[in-house]
Amino acid sequence: MIQEKILDFLKRKPDYVSGDQISHRLGITRQALWKHIQILKDSGYDIVAVPHLGYRLISSPDRLMPLEVTRELNTKFMGKKIYYFDTVSSTMDIALQLGIKGSPEGTVVLAETQTKGRGRLGRNWFSPKYKGIYLSLILRPKILPNQTPLLTLMSAVSICEAVKEKMGLTTQIKWPNDILIHHKKLGGILTELNAETDLSRFVVIGIGLNVNNDKKTLPAGATSLKEQRKEKMSRLDLLQEILRKIEANYLIFQKKGTKPIIDKWRDWSVSLGRRVRVICQKEHIEGEALDIDIDGGLLIRNDAGLTQKMMAGDVVHCR
Amino acid sequence: MIQEKILDFLKRKPDYVSGDQISHRLGITRQALWKHIQILKDSGYDIVAVPHLGYRLISSPDRLMPLEVTRELNTKFMGKKIYYFDTVSSTMDIALQLGIKGSPEGTVVLAETQTKGRGRLGRNWFSPKYKGIYLSLILRPKILPNQTPLLTLMSAVSICEAVKEKMGLTTQIKWPNDILIHHKKLGGILTELNAETDLSRFVVIGIGLNVNNDKKTLPAGATSLKEQRKEKMSRLDLLQEILRKIEANYLIFQKKGTKPIIDKWRDWSVSLGRRVRVICQKEHIEGEALDIDIDGGLLIRNDAGLTQKMMAGDVVHCR
Repeated sequence: MIQEKILDFLKRKPDYVSGDQISHRLGITRQALWKHIQILKDSGYDIVAVPHLGYRLISSPDRLMPLEVTRELNTKFMGKKIYYFDTVSSTMDIALQLGIKGSPEGTVVLAETQTKGRGRLGRNWFSPKYKGIYLSLILRPKILPNQTPLLTLMSAVSICEAVKEKMGLTTQIKWPNDILIHHKKLGGILTELNAETDLSRFVVIGIGLNVNNDKKTLPAGATSLKEQRKEKMSRLDLLQEILRKIEANYLIFQKKGTKPIIDKWRDWSVSLGRRVRVICQKEHIEGEALDIDIDGGLLIRNDAGLTQKMMAGDVVHCR
Repeated sequence: MIQEKILDFLKRKPDYVSGDQISHRLGITRQALWKHIQILKDSGYDIVAVPHLGYRLISSPDRLMPLEVTRELNTKFMGKKIYYFDTVSSTMDIALQLGIKGSPEGTVVLAETQTKGRGRLGRNWFSPKYKGIYLSLILRPKILPNQTPLLTLMSAVSICEAVKEKMGLTTQIKWPNDILIHHKKLGGILTELNAETDLSRFVVIGIGLNVNNDKKTLPAGATSLKEQRKEKMSRLDLLQEILRKIEANYLIFQKKGTKPIIDKWRDWSVSLGRRVRVICQKEHIEGEALDIDIDGGLLIRNDAGLTQKMMAGDVVHCR
């Protein structure tokens, strides 16, 4: 908390700030201030100290440090508690364990890289270090377990809104959980549920987003914001906006139900109105993706005119 | 494993067994044997040693020791790995964490008492020490999350079968998760799910059973096997049989689907054919409990002749 406040001082002034002024305002000794500055420097903040002038922040590290994420986040509960890791097996596993232990709604697990990042259906999520946003967050909605897919839609909408607002880029959602730009994969959402038979105890939303990945390091069919914009982007700004949007949409979901979320989702969807093939385990259905149902299922009209609902599966857009 | 084998020797012979014989057969020294015997004695086994005669088992402790549970269990996977605790907050929480870490199907968490034993919908489960069976077990069925209720039914059937076989008592199931004798509560089942939106990752089945509780210590409306039979019962025998029956019924469920489980469930049900009131959150429905549906839901016909399905709730049997 003290370090957060010190950074606040340094960031507000592009020039030197006197150590006396900072330590006086924070009610700590000069010696204590110096120690906190050392810790910040060890974390990658480039801070210079000049006698009689004071301290000056030259640059911040390209890290998703909790004290930066929470700074001016202005949310009610989202991201109030952040668990930050340089390297982690999977943010999902950490968040699930925190959920079991009772961590509150809005708890966020962040990592700079994951050694076993998870995608849907046990697939891997490639998580190169310092390049993307890899997070899991805990929600505790009072919903039936079968309403969980709506939280995936809600998160997808939030990411699209955040990318639009902060990066000026228009993304699209491929049902159920892919975020695309120009038909290439920018990110994905994994929703895991811990529930009693008839009551959701908590939900963990996992998000993986390619931000500053270089084109050559991306898997086939994938893209990053850097590739799209041809410049390095601020992961921090985007992360904060994602947390804000998820909170805002989650509050809408709780107050007004599923309809406003589904309405928004339709606007970002790349699948609706197209001919698709949905593969689910051994089954597959081909037809026109008509709409999203009230429970998040995809409604498909096949060539015989029969409409079927898929709750799970992989969508292939047909030509 | 060695201690398990030593116990095996001692249990097979009601008389003294020579230390030479045991240590020779197990390929250990007399000194090592003596040490293992000390450990067993520390665990509560009353073993006497007489020079020239050898060792003799006088009595075993009234504990659900893993080495006793696995002895002659003869299951394929159920209970092959047991985590045993004298005192634990909740076997559910331990099992959920083991599940996240990848513990295999059939892993069992056993406790002699729980400080925060959980019932359905956040209710408490009273777990007096050494009196009941409190366990959670991990299954990894390849099912959709909404099929989870069937595992509750499957577990309830297994418990009824085990109590009948080992104790000669006929129990009944009150939908969805109560085990009754003479309309008093003997036990309950809690099923918790960890799932992706469209794929169950693992399920934890929690079982709480009143075995040797004295009448005066039981909550209102509850009973124990001891109260019913007027004698102390072997928790160990019953636990082993429950594990065997759950494995057997689970294999039936996997091979033949839900029908044989539901058929069995109907035979043990106390709810079907009766007038019931089902309370679910603010809603409640009254009518005749007609049948159980293919997904484990309870079908109720109200007075207007309309049949409704409840997936959750508390059942009250009306007079």
